[in-house]
Amino acid sequence: MNYQEILNEIYRQIKSRPNEGELPGYIPELALVNPDKFGISLQFLTGATYEVGDAHEPFSIQSIAKVFAFSMAISMVGKKIFERVGVEPSGNAFNSLVQLEYEKGIPRNPFINAGAIVVADILISNASNPAQELINFISKVANKKIQYNENVFQSEKKTGFRNAALANLLKSYGNLENEVDVVLDLYFRMCSISMSCNELASAFKYLCNGGINPHCNQQLLSLSQTKRLNALMQSCGFYDEAGQFTYKVGLPGKSGVGGGIIALYPGKFTIAVWSPKLNPKGNSLRGMKALEQFTTDSQLSIF
Amino acid sequence: MNYQEILNEIYRQIKSRPNEGELPGYIPELALVNPDKFGISLQFLTGATYEVGDAHEPFSIQSIAKVFAFSMAISMVGKKIFERVGVEPSGNAFNSLVQLEYEKGIPRNPFINAGAIVVADILISNASNPAQELINFISKVANKKIQYNENVFQSEKKTGFRNAALANLLKSYGNLENEVDVVLDLYFRMCSISMSCNELASAFKYLCNGGINPHCNQQLLSLSQTKRLNALMQSCGFYDEAGQFTYKVGLPGKSGVGGGIIALYPGKFTIAVWSPKLNPKGNSLRGMKALEQFTTDSQLSIF
Amino acid sequence: MNYQEILNEIYRQIKSRPNEGELPGYIPELALVNPDKFGISLQFLTGATYEVGDAHEPFSIQSIAKVFAFSMAISMVGKKIFERVGVEPSGNAFNSLVQLEYEKGIPRNPFINAGAIVVADILISNASNPAQELINFISKVANKKIQYNENVFQSEKKTGFRNAALANLLKSYGNLENEVDVVLDLYFRMCSISMSCNELASAFKYLCNGGINPHCNQQLLSLSQTKRLNALMQSCGFYDEAGQFTYKVGLPGKSGVGGGIIALYPGKFTIAVWSPKLNPKGNSLRGMKALEQFTTDSQLSIF
Amino acid sequence: MNYQEILNEIYRQIKSRPNEGELPGYIPELALVNPDKFGISLQFLTGATYEVGDAHEPFSIQSIAKVFAFSMAISMVGKKIFERVGVEPSGNAFNSLVQLEYEKGIPRNPFINAGAIVVADILISNASNPAQELINFISKVANKKIQYNENVFQSEKKTGFRNAALANLLKSYGNLENEVDVVLDLYFRMCSISMSCNELASAFKYLCNGGINPHCNQQLLSLSQTKRLNALMQSCGFYDEAGQFTYKVGLPGKSGVGGGIIALYPGKFTIAVWSPKLNPKGNSLRGMKALEQFTTDSQLSIF
Repeated sequence: MNYQEILNEIYRQIKSRPNEGELPGYIPELALVNPDKFGISLQFLTGATYEVGDAHEPFSIQSIAKVFAFSMAISMVGKKIFERVGVEPSGNAFNSLVQLEYEKGIPRNPFINAGAIVVADILISNASNPAQELINFISKVANKKIQYNENVFQSEKKTGFRNAALANLLKSYGNLENEVDVVLDLYFRMCSISMSCNELASAFKYLCNGGINPHCNQQLLSLSQTKRLNALMQSCGFYDEAGQFTYKVGLPGKSGVGGGIIALYPGKFTIAVWSPKLNPKGNSLRGMKALEQFTTDSQLSIF
Repeated sequence: MNYQEILNEIYRQIKSRPNEGELPGYIPELALVNPDKFGISLQFLTGATYEVGDAHEPFSIQSIAKVFAFSMAISMVGKKIFERVGVEPSGNAFNSLVQLEYEKGIPRNPFINAGAIVVADILISNASNPAQELINFISKVANKKIQYNENVFQSEKKTGFRNAALANLLKSYGNLENEVDVVLDLYFRMCSISMSCNELASAFKYLCNGGINPHCNQQLLSLSQTKRLNALMQSCGFYDEAGQFTYKVGLPGKSGVGGGIIALYPGKFTIAVWSPKLNPKGNSLRGMKALEQFTTDSQLSIF
Repeated sequence: MNYQEILNEIYRQIKSRPNEGELPGYIPELALVNPDKFGISLQFLTGATYEVGDAHEPFSIQSIAKVFAFSMAISMVGKKIFERVGVEPSGNAFNSLVQLEYEKGIPRNPFINAGAIVVADILISNASNPAQELINFISKVANKKIQYNENVFQSEKKTGFRNAALANLLKSYGNLENEVDVVLDLYFRMCSISMSCNELASAFKYLCNGGINPHCNQQLLSLSQTKRLNALMQSCGFYDEAGQFTYKVGLPGKSGVGGGIIALYPGKFTIAVWSPKLNPKGNSLRGMKALEQFTTDSQLSIF
Repeated sequence: MNYQEILNEIYRQIKSRPNEGELPGYIPELALVNPDKFGISLQFLTGATYEVGDAHEPFSIQSIAKVFAFSMAISMVGKKIFERVGVEPSGNAFNSLVQLEYEKGIPRNPFINAGAIVVADILISNASNPAQELINFISKVANKKIQYNENVFQSEKKTGFRNAALANLLKSYGNLENEVDVVLDLYFRMCSISMSCNELASAFKYLCNGGINPHCNQQLLSLSQTKRLNALMQSCGFYDEAGQFTYKVGLPGKSGVGGGIIALYPGKFTIAVWSPKLNPKGNSLRGMKALEQFTTDSQLSIF
């Protein structure tokens, strides 16, 4: 199959249509991005790589970083993590307090904001310099030095009242071990990482490769942990649109409000897409379309 | 009617039964109170006063102070207050975030925590020294110097994560004008006032008297504002037990988790009860019983 | 005070403004009513009566009949009724299933649809001919032969899927003793009664008069039951607008989607208003305004 | 890999532990089943079949039949089906009315009860003899005559008040074209089918085989429809435990309250398990464990 041609055709078609959706107004720094950016990077475990558009331009990966943080946390504390966070799709917006209250402070899964705040708390309790260790982990899997973006971090911190509400609610239920402000600091930092499609697709290869970082052959997660993390992305990677993504794309993946989406076919390939404008559920509108088109044309969904 | 005898009999009966209910564990300072305290103060506008038990011992009036704060706020900004807070009973626990999220940051009424936090924000925006002016107002209606309790204030502040969650959520919806920490500080202070039954019954006479403080004949609220504030206590004064209180007692009133309850019959009398142990809804268990017995025996409900 | 002049002025003012609101589309029979009808009947226990507009024209009283049905049920089974229905305001739309499911089949109060369906079930279990006995009770308190409207009954029955959903849900929780269809039949009949403002104000005098039907001096409810029923109307008579009505009008009362509202001042008077167009909460828009104006002008709220 | 040995070992281990969980009390007919039954049938597309325990004993497949009904419906009306039912996991119990009300009568997905009732309505509108055509479809994919169980059907019909509530609520939102009773009749019939593990695993091969019935080479669904139906089972096949099943088992599947579970690996195999006792979420307790063990031991999850 000619993957480069498939990507080119997807790029051509999507660029020819109006660029619908909205930039996320509530994070000032993200509203400044050029909305017409659009890139794809498809990387097979074999090494074959196919790219189109702005695949090498860095953008704010936002919630996609939750997958890296969760990988570290589960490698630190193992199954015990599930005493503090669930594995069910939320069926609600990513930053909903409602569900957290009904369920007594146990977030539905580690990829909604409340769950990722708990993950940040676990990293703080188990690492001597959590912010540094997280960015080191990401640099290792990306095989390249990755950095926090200070502007995005400050922007999130200044306007993150809803996340502060979630963190305080978690604390009131006894599901944070550390100080609210310390946990929020790491959480906002986690959301402020910049990477390109090329870097993202490269960095997710360890999850495509049974837990082994292909850049250095280090086993980061066990095969079983890896399969389960992929399953979790399938169930919970797209907030209350996880069902749509599973239905239309048929790959495990994770999105961020910066307009990025990563998806992967276990044992075969990773694919990263970036287009900043979001649909009403907070997922990249053209990114969702591009991936649906890709698995339809290539027949490479896992189902 | 022999009111003293009615009070004596209520006191005797209730004291003869086991002292059920729980002290509120989540505010450490309140858990230290002697659970057997029990007092009633009944004060007619005519001046006649009937009391029994620990009617002159101060306790933490907690949420009862929300009525004083709301009185000040409505006298400052008038009807405009209802652009930021509603007048409907909540049907939920007093500190629920769920409802606040469903209703986009407009608290159901000024007597649930979220609503009182908005009231605190209004006081801060409209007073040069809000904490001082609030305690001055209360001292004026009580005709006696009333004070904040520093220990209770610190205790609430240290453990008030749920209220911090509410305040941050309000801020995220744009329904707080001032800094979250500043608003919470006044809110926690507001909840830390100590008064006795005797002082409370005296201090609520302005609401019994068409808005005129009987101690100095000053008109604090208009007749219409007063009637509406009383109506609001009827609908919303007892969290998700407002219907029970209306049904069984039939007077407008307000409770606090310190075990105090104030109620009043417009134009006739005020009555304050204190007993620290709470029912599962957070209202004084023996206080509710005492007031039900009182209006049944005296036939003095407003219905 | 010149009550006739107050009513005339209210009538004049309201008639001079545009007739806003909507007829209830979901009950075909009610959508056919002339939307400009407007009448008031004010009746003191002393016998003095003041009326204006279409006060003698019958209309569908709809949910107002729930008060009569509840009166009969509580006189039949006493306090035991509260094992099957609560006394708290619902905080939700009158026909919400959500709350009923959260609360395991115990309706919040007897005036939301689910609660009135339970009341209908109680009447069926305790009367040999419940439909006949209900209309007899209403005729007795109205001092006049009142009748079911067959067209409205058929109209409700044909389109009442939501009430059928409520009844089936109640049955699934074991909170209906009789067959679903039999209970729904009585419920729809109960909602199909036609009365004029004049008849309604007359019929509610027993609740204004301590439980004694003034037309024949029969004690229908005890004083305590009467006070509590009035309190229940205060808390729960206007669905999720009960707080607004309490706040603005300050009288216990009950509304129906036919555009009627009844309110009363215990020991003093009853007042019935009718105007068919409804506000978004399902209460008569001009009726609410008229009553607010009346208690403001006359200062006759109970608070 | 020696699959027979893996199955034998799973059977041995699970049989050696206490048989926990509960029979479903609310369907009388299902409460009569022998709770110790336990069988597995694993069938590869190649024809290789491995079985253990009661794999040939028929049981009530209940909700598993919803997959057959949905297959027929989507082959009849195509994508238009998604105007009336969604593809998102429900995050709530399978028979919840709450969600249906919040989402205005559009069920979250076709595998919760409300969604399957809509699917039944579609079959009625598009088939001349829907009950007969459904059982014919199932017999065709099972390559064997399958039948409705009249006792189970009557049992469900007599006690199905909650499903009657759902159907009436759907009707009130205009999301049923046919009479409530007619739709419920087909729905209850759909839930009353008996099959063995052997028959189930055989009947689901068309979904494992790209939509082609391997027994007769007929294309029943397109490849794309098949992939999407499998994705839908992954997201929504286990009610509010779909995330757990995805996480622990990692295969698309569907459970029924009769204690059956079907799962499949696209292009490779189908596997059916039966054990009547359910966990609190309504899924077969030993069935979930057996499948988790199977994909762990065989490493045959799709992730």
